[in-house]
Amino acid sequence: MSINYKGFEACEGGVCAAKGFKASGIHCGIRKNKDKKDLALIYSEKICSAAAVYTQNKVKGAPLIVTKRNLENGKAQAVICNSGNANTCNADGEQKAITMCKLTASALGIKASDVVVASTGVIGQILPIEPIADNMNKLAKALCENGNLDAAEAIMTTDTVKKEFAVEFKLGDTVCKLGGMAKGSGMIHPNMATMLCFLTTDVDISDKLLAKALKAVVDDTFNMVSVDGDTSTNDNCVILASGLSGNKHISEPDSEDYKTFVNALYVVLMNLSRMIAADGEGATKLLECVVTGACDVKNAKTVAKSVITSSLFKCAMFGKDANWGRILCAIGYSEAKLNINGVEVILSSKAGSVQVCKDGFGVEFSEEKALKILSEDEIKIIVNLSDGDAKAVAWGCDLTYDYVKINGDYRT
Amino acid sequence: MSINYKGFEACEGGVCAAKGFKASGIHCGIRKNKDKKDLALIYSEKICSAAAVYTQNKVKGAPLIVTKRNLENGKAQAVICNSGNANTCNADGEQKAITMCKLTASALGIKASDVVVASTGVIGQILPIEPIADNMNKLAKALCENGNLDAAEAIMTTDTVKKEFAVEFKLGDTVCKLGGMAKGSGMIHPNMATMLCFLTTDVDISDKLLAKALKAVVDDTFNMVSVDGDTSTNDNCVILASGLSGNKHISEPDSEDYKTFVNALYVVLMNLSRMIAADGEGATKLLECVVTGACDVKNAKTVAKSVITSSLFKCAMFGKDANWGRILCAIGYSEAKLNINGVEVILSSKAGSVQVCKDGFGVEFSEEKALKILSEDEIKIIVNLSDGDAKAVAWGCDLTYDYVKINGDYRT
Repeated sequence: MSINYKGFEACEGGVCAAKGFKASGIHCGIRKNKDKKDLALIYSEKICSAAAVYTQNKVKGAPLIVTKRNLENGKAQAVICNSGNANTCNADGEQKAITMCKLTASALGIKASDVVVASTGVIGQILPIEPIADNMNKLAKALCENGNLDAAEAIMTTDTVKKEFAVEFKLGDTVCKLGGMAKGSGMIHPNMATMLCFLTTDVDISDKLLAKALKAVVDDTFNMVSVDGDTSTNDNCVILASGLSGNKHISEPDSEDYKTFVNALYVVLMNLSRMIAADGEGATKLLECVVTGACDVKNAKTVAKSVITSSLFKCAMFGKDANWGRILCAIGYSEAKLNINGVEVILSSKAGSVQVCKDGFGVEFSEEKALKILSEDEIKIIVNLSDGDAKAVAWGCDLTYDYVKINGDYRT
Repeated sequence: MSINYKGFEACEGGVCAAKGFKASGIHCGIRKNKDKKDLALIYSEKICSAAAVYTQNKVKGAPLIVTKRNLENGKAQAVICNSGNANTCNADGEQKAITMCKLTASALGIKASDVVVASTGVIGQILPIEPIADNMNKLAKALCENGNLDAAEAIMTTDTVKKEFAVEFKLGDTVCKLGGMAKGSGMIHPNMATMLCFLTTDVDISDKLLAKALKAVVDDTFNMVSVDGDTSTNDNCVILASGLSGNKHISEPDSEDYKTFVNALYVVLMNLSRMIAADGEGATKLLECVVTGACDVKNAKTVAKSVITSSLFKCAMFGKDANWGRILCAIGYSEAKLNINGVEVILSSKAGSVQVCKDGFGVEFSEEKALKILSEDEIKIIVNLSDGDAKAVAWGCDLTYDYVKINGDYRT
């Protein structure tokens, strides 16, 4: 699934790839299942520049409110995150989130206001603080330079795979790293940061530019992912930059180094986005909608998101059916400006490509070939609007029996 | 499911309830299954005032383009509609729709420009005109005053039940009737007319006021229904008014008679809306979200639609799970203006009511009682925003294995 761009080598280590970062993940007892880790910690030996983007949902998890306050000065040194409980819509939520920061700070010998706090899980159930308090020292002691996988596991909810990605690249002659971990996989829909993602880098960069880069890249990656159209209350994406790589401090948005950093961030977030879409609740297929020939990027994004979000289209992909009328339908009800008589649609995968629609009308194609193409587990839907040069990509997944099972039938 | 309002008595007859209307429905051969009717006709002995609303999808079915043109003069005398093929995204679509009007006109001895034409079914497959041409005289001959159920059956696609409703009411001392038939059940989402609906009445009313009434009532009924978030390319809602009841001609929007007519229209469309939602593809439950205490109607509608559209919430209802966090989540990501700390949520059905959230936070409730309430097949979700006096209702259904089966797994 990983895509390498020239000059950006995928590397091991996730959130521990960059210099100065350690991580850990343990079972503390928020979840009943003892085999399921439920508490993650990331720690930087040096205070970091930090930036974040938050859900646009008007119902915001209590941890987000506390994190936003702690990041006002653009600095952070640790991330604490539990799974199994979202600590949202609870009257005591904010107080509990503050307590989580204090416990973390005390165990690490840092300031509580330098801690990023996050929670993910069920909404509206009181968060038990005891398991966290009782196990904080154990969690801090477990910190190590290859604790990235433990941490990535501890933030999972209905995810079926751990999601991490890291790249190595050069700024001038200095080797730098940027890595991250993320969790999906339901309540995912484009609208700012739509899941939890924690990123670390050893690049030396101003917190202002760090925030600018994060916002720009999230708009093109996480905000282009949809699993089910539901924008969660708790999701956010945080980046910590330790500056330990020794590169020349980045403070100019026009500099080559800044552009390189943005590209590195894009490679990491694009790969994590694809992992989240592919591991969408119940998904059997990763869907990638590439819109070309749009009059501007906004319209391209609108069309790509509309296709990837259509329940009918998602069901057709599950059924391996080249029912392209549903793609046209989703293009048509999007808010994009477009001339439907210019629309071309191509379905593509490892098994080949087939044009199914041209000039807004159906064309003859081999159903047999289409079935072969759609039997692969990564499907690309290419929509050419014949209306300009702008382009966008969105990622999603098919809608399956298991999505319904996971979200509706979990009582049985 | 029917709700009677004082002065509006539900009555038999569907599109044949009003004076002067006949209908028929036959199998002509567009569908392979000979047991499935696929061609419907409605005929008025007198030329009617007529009005329509159309899908907002930029991909519009060819029949809609022809119907819009034919209704420019506000007059119509017949409706021809096939199922099994949407006649959309085909290069010859418009020509075929014109031919359908000509064939109908010739069989009935009326003008082709007085025919409303509609098609529903798969998008992007060439419509075979021969079955329609060969059977038009048979269809016209079958017209009768109790052909309403045949017609209602012939426009069904994945619908599992015929949908018709009619009311009797008085304008002054004159008894009038208004009835209609509709088809659902996938590709349904609030955005103007979101499915096919044909209405007939014997009320004497100007075509201008007929259009005004239809637009207003559709906004509060069909546009508040969502099955899957997909707005179809072909859907529209047409009303024919023969004027044969003998009431005093309605031409003033401030008149009592106009208000009574709007109410009659509301009763019919609200009942058809509930039928469409309850028969949503794969649905096991009708969901009705009632939003009260909003600062204005627009915000109330936005919140009601957002709740009813959430895949996660729809799955929870299928699973009979009082997972109210998903309701809060859907309220929060709606575009409505609201103070989340004022939100109260009550779940209700024949089996009782339970408050699950107050002031934006969870409250303790009996899971056992909630399960009993959610085990009914009609669930009401009452959301009080504590922010004003405005109110809105939206209708939807749960998301089930069968939705996926119908739309994804139909090859097997």
